[in-house]
Amino acid sequence: MITIALPKGALLSDSINLFKSVGLDFSAFLDDRNRQLQIADPTNTAKAILVRAQDVPVYVEYGQAQLGIVGYDVLLEKSPKVANLADLKFGYCRMSVAVPEASSYKRSLELPPHGRVASKFVHCAKEYFRKLNLPVEIIPLYGSVELGPITGMSEAIVDLVSTGRTLRENGLIEIDVLFESTARLIAHPLSYRLGLYNLHDWVEKLSQETLQRTYTNFH
Amino acid sequence: MITIALPKGALLSDSINLFKSVGLDFSAFLDDRNRQLQIADPTNTAKAILVRAQDVPVYVEYGQAQLGIVGYDVLLEKSPKVANLADLKFGYCRMSVAVPEASSYKRSLELPPHGRVASKFVHCAKEYFRKLNLPVEIIPLYGSVELGPITGMSEAIVDLVSTGRTLRENGLIEIDVLFESTARLIAHPLSYRLGLYNLHDWVEKLSQETLQRTYTNFH
Repeated sequence: MITIALPKGALLSDSINLFKSVGLDFSAFLDDRNRQLQIADPTNTAKAILVRAQDVPVYVEYGQAQLGIVGYDVLLEKSPKVANLADLKFGYCRMSVAVPEASSYKRSLELPPHGRVASKFVHCAKEYFRKLNLPVEIIPLYGSVELGPITGMSEAIVDLVSTGRTLRENGLIEIDVLFESTARLIAHPLSYRLGLYNLHDWVEKLSQETLQRTYTNFH
Repeated sequence: MITIALPKGALLSDSINLFKSVGLDFSAFLDDRNRQLQIADPTNTAKAILVRAQDVPVYVEYGQAQLGIVGYDVLLEKSPKVANLADLKFGYCRMSVAVPEASSYKRSLELPPHGRVASKFVHCAKEYFRKLNLPVEIIPLYGSVELGPITGMSEAIVDLVSTGRTLRENGLIEIDVLFESTARLIAHPLSYRLGLYNLHDWVEKLSQETLQRTYTNFH
């Protein structure tokens, strides 16, 4: 039976929606009382595991799940060995550089050399400033990155922004965008190459469904 | 004004309790409606910031906080450049190796060479198996590590255990303990060495209070 890794958090309901449209119902995961991390769909065609967004590519890389949905940001940050098959067009957000409103920096390149940038996305942040040829110190944090500038520990942050509410609430403004991110369909490369678990059919169905939705949205 | 970094989660209420006993009241952080990440105590003697447990040593290492409370497990995993000043004796837990009940492994050394171990504590796990001279592959996960053995991705896990409830609920049993962990008082090394912010007094008071509590518990 094919196993699908679904991400907890912001992408979950859209992911479940997408799979529902191709006949696989995992909406039991949306029930607040649900404590199970592993369920089968009612037709017993597929199994889904519910894991942290960052863990989705791990389960897919190790072949424990053959398909998964994960944000492009996680793929860029972790570079897992998975096949990145389709842009699912939902879960839009952007990886941005932000500074306190009161600061004089209007672009990343205006940040002081050897300044400090706090981020949960250490790899993405490092790569970005390396390409700008701007030497900065990246301070790795796990949460509440906005506290970096507030406490004076860093001049800026690199973080995911969707509505921008957290930035506004903390008096921060975006000054540059590293990249835009959406949900991606990923697969275990070997299983996909060998065509196991009808993977090609599933990927085709999910891509068609995505295309149709995008089309409907535009017309 | 001295700044103290307090960890969200399991250690928070005991940490606030300890500081209260030396005259610093940060119990506003325990209010569910509180959204502030930075507060001063009512006497305006000290400031506290509320951050993820793993971020406490970061704020202390960079001198944004002069004191902090963090689990010994985080110190061993991250090796931050902070002064590790006192064992505060609360927040006991242990870093353990666990396997499915049904498995035949009764000790870490019985795990198969080149087996897989899932863990959030990649550094601790690597060091442990290196010292055992047992080559294993560590699979880094962010959450729900117990899914590693359940899905068959790994033979074992290395994780923090306090009550053991999560292990039991997932049919896992502990077979070895890497180390025991409790809450630690840490300080910014340079500030401590220079005796800034009356740091020596605060550390002395907090240590005395801890000693007294431990004594009371034993008698």
